[in-house]
Amino acid sequence: MLNKNINFPITVIKFGGSSVADADKIKNIAKIIKIKTEARLKAVVIVSAMGRSTNKLIELSKEMSEDPNARELDVLLSTGELVTSTLLSMHLNHLNIKTISLNGIQAGIRTDDKYGRAKIADIDTTRINRELKNNDVVVVAGFQGFSDRNDVTTLGRGGSDTTAVAMAAALKLKNCEIYTDVSGVYTADPRLCERAKPIERIGYEEMLELAITGAKVLHPRSIEVASFNNIDILVKNTFDPKAKGTIIQSESKMENINKVRGIAHQEKIGKITIKGIPDKPGIASSVFKPLSKENIPVDTIVQNSSSNNLTDVTFTVTTEDYQKAKIVAGSMIKKIGASEVTGTDDIGSVSVIGTGMTSTPGYAATMFEALSKENINIEIISTSEIRITCVIKKIRVNDAVNALHNAFKLDIE
Amino acid sequence: MLNKNINFPITVIKFGGSSVADADKIKNIAKIIKIKTEARLKAVVIVSAMGRSTNKLIELSKEMSEDPNARELDVLLSTGELVTSTLLSMHLNHLNIKTISLNGIQAGIRTDDKYGRAKIADIDTTRINRELKNNDVVVVAGFQGFSDRNDVTTLGRGGSDTTAVAMAAALKLKNCEIYTDVSGVYTADPRLCERAKPIERIGYEEMLELAITGAKVLHPRSIEVASFNNIDILVKNTFDPKAKGTIIQSESKMENINKVRGIAHQEKIGKITIKGIPDKPGIASSVFKPLSKENIPVDTIVQNSSSNNLTDVTFTVTTEDYQKAKIVAGSMIKKIGASEVTGTDDIGSVSVIGTGMTSTPGYAATMFEALSKENINIEIISTSEIRITCVIKKIRVNDAVNALHNAFKLDIE
Repeated sequence: MLNKNINFPITVIKFGGSSVADADKIKNIAKIIKIKTEARLKAVVIVSAMGRSTNKLIELSKEMSEDPNARELDVLLSTGELVTSTLLSMHLNHLNIKTISLNGIQAGIRTDDKYGRAKIADIDTTRINRELKNNDVVVVAGFQGFSDRNDVTTLGRGGSDTTAVAMAAALKLKNCEIYTDVSGVYTADPRLCERAKPIERIGYEEMLELAITGAKVLHPRSIEVASFNNIDILVKNTFDPKAKGTIIQSESKMENINKVRGIAHQEKIGKITIKGIPDKPGIASSVFKPLSKENIPVDTIVQNSSSNNLTDVTFTVTTEDYQKAKIVAGSMIKKIGASEVTGTDDIGSVSVIGTGMTSTPGYAATMFEALSKENINIEIISTSEIRITCVIKKIRVNDAVNALHNAFKLDIE
Repeated sequence: MLNKNINFPITVIKFGGSSVADADKIKNIAKIIKIKTEARLKAVVIVSAMGRSTNKLIELSKEMSEDPNARELDVLLSTGELVTSTLLSMHLNHLNIKTISLNGIQAGIRTDDKYGRAKIADIDTTRINRELKNNDVVVVAGFQGFSDRNDVTTLGRGGSDTTAVAMAAALKLKNCEIYTDVSGVYTADPRLCERAKPIERIGYEEMLELAITGAKVLHPRSIEVASFNNIDILVKNTFDPKAKGTIIQSESKMENINKVRGIAHQEKIGKITIKGIPDKPGIASSVFKPLSKENIPVDTIVQNSSSNNLTDVTFTVTTEDYQKAKIVAGSMIKKIGASEVTGTDDIGSVSVIGTGMTSTPGYAATMFEALSKENINIEIISTSEIRITCVIKKIRVNDAVNALHNAFKLDIE
C-alpha cells in the first residue's frame, strides 16, 4: 500500500449508499475509518449519496421534465455525494481526525462528456497528494468527475465503485476496500436463495460475468478497471466489518478451481424483436447503431435467419431503457424494410459462471436439465467462455436460481 | 439594460427561497422568466435554495458536530442552490427556452476565504457572457462563490441578493429585479402591523438602515453593493407579479421627503454586559477584537463610564451568536480586569428610519413618547444620521411597532 511518491501508507476505502443512509450510519463508518488512521494509515475515502437520495433527486427532475437535460441532471445528481462527503468530513473533524472533502473536480477526476454515463479518462492526483500530506483522511465525492469544459459529469449508477478502483490505480496502490451492506460476493443472491454462501476469493473475469449478469455487489466497470490495473478489491460488510468478505483479484493469484463459482440473475429485462428484416450484410449495424447513438446499451442479441431471405433480430435491454429502445426500433422499420417490432418487459435471466466452463460441455447440459425439471421455458441462450445465460420469464427467476444452486451443489464446499 | 460588450439586452432576476420552495413553485417562476425571453430579453437568473432546504442541511451538519468545520459546511450548503438551479434549468429547457445552469465557480464569483460569510471580490463574466450568446437564460446558483484555493465559499444568509446585485454590476447593467414573497418594502412588517403599506421608492441609505435594523426583504450587503455600483433594485412579489413593488435607488433620483419612511424591528437579539472594567484607553479594542476574531458581528455598543474609574460595556449580537459571544466575553474578564459578564437573549429592537431625521429633534421625542405611552421600557438607544433605534424587551416589539406606525402616521400618504 506504499505509494512511492509519498512517504506514508495509503488506503482507498469506498462506502456505498446503504452504508451512509442516515446521520447515524455516517457516524458508524467514521469508526471504521478511525481504525485505519489509528493504525497510521492515511485514507482516501470514496462515498456514495445517502441511501435513496439519488432516487429522490431523479424524482424531482422528472417533475421538471419527462426527459431532463442530461448536463443539468448530472449537476443535480452530483450534489448527493457532496452532501455525504461533507457530512462525513465534519464528523471525522469532530473526532479530531484531520480531514478535508473534495468534489470530483477537486479530486482531479477527468472524464469524457457523456453525461450520466461518463467514463474516467484520467485522475490528476496533484491536489489529493497535497491534501494527504496535510490530512489523515481525504473524503472524495464518488460517482462524479468533470469534462474538458469543466462541467460536472456523473459516471452512472454504481459509479462510486469505479471512482474507488480508479483512485487506487491513480495513487499506484495494490488494492482498495469496498464496503457495502452484504458480507461479500455470494454464490447466489441470498435474498432469493437461502443456501447461498459468501465466496472467499474470485477472479476478475468470473466477477465481471457475475456483475454483468446481475450480481449487484459491484459495478462491472469497477471490475474492468481493477483488472486492467491489477488492483485487488476487498468487498466488506459495513454492518459486520469482522466478516471475512470477498477478495476479487487476478486469476493468476488464485487456485484455478474449474467449477461453477456462482449464479447471477436479473429481473429487469425488456426483450424486443424486429421481425422480417431482409437478410443482407450490414443488418446488425443498421439496427444497433441508432440504439448506440441514443446511449442505450444492448445486452443479449440473437438473430434467427429464416427460409425466405428474411430474418428476425431479438435483443434485450434494461426495463429502464425498454420504452425508448422500442421507439428507436420502431422508427427504423421502414429504413431497413422490416415488417414489425414486438416486445415485452416481463423478462429476467439466470446465469451460471465459472472459469473454464464452456470447455466442459456437461455444465450446459446440467443447467438446461435443472431448468427443464422445474418446467422453466428458456427464451434465449447466450454464452461466453466462462458463462451460460438463459433468458426466462421474470416470474420464474427465483425458482431458477434455487434450482441451479442445488444442481451445481454450490452449498457444498 | 444594454451591455455594450454584448449585442442584446440582458436582465438579472433573483428568486428567493420561498419563490422556489417546491416543484410547482419552480414551474411558476419559469413563467415569469418566459415573459422576459418572449420580450427578447436575455436573462441571468439567480436562485436561492428551495424553501427550508438550507435549514435542513444545517440540521444534518449539527448531527455530525456541534461546531461543524466551516469549509465543509460551505460545500454542504452550496448544494441547496445547485439543486434549484438545475431543476429550474431543466424546466426552462422543457419549455423550449435555451438555458444552462452555472455554479458559483463557473459563474466566476471570486470571494475571500471567510467561509460562511465570504465577500465577493470580483466576478469574471467570461463564461457567463459566452453562455449568454448561446442561451436565452443562464441560471446561476446564488449564495456561493470560490476562494483563491478554488474551494467553495458561501456568502452568508441572504447572500443570493448580493449575488444578484453584484452580477448586475459585473454585467454593467443599470438594475436588477429581486422576486420575493411580499409586494415590496413596507412601512413596517405587515405581519406585525396591519396598517403597513408598500413603499413605492426608497433610497439606498434608508433601505440599508431598514435592512440592518430588521426589515427582512433584502440583505443589507446587497444594498451596499447596489449603492456603490448605482444599481436600481426592483423588489417584486413572485406570487403577485402585477403588484408594483418597491424601487430602491439613489437618493439623487428621488424627491427627498424629509419624513419617517418606515419602521424596522428585530426579535432575535442577545445583550451582553461586561461590568467593572478599569476605564483606560484601548478598552473597546481589547473587548471587540476577540469577538471580531471569532467572526461575531456586534451590533449596538454602549459604554457607561462610572465614578470610581470603572466602566460597563454593553453590546448586542444576534441570538445565534449569543452563546459563543458570552463565552468569548467571559474568557477576557481576567485579561482586562473586569468583574463579571451578564447577559440575556430575550431582547428585541425597534427602529424609525428617514432621511434628515436626526437634524429634526422632534422625531426622537415623538418616538420616546409613543413607547412611554405603551409603558415600554427602553434599554439602549442608538442613532445614526437617519435612524433611531431603541433596544427593548422582545415581548414588547409587536406593540412598539404598531405604536410607532401610528405615531408617525405611516398609514397616511
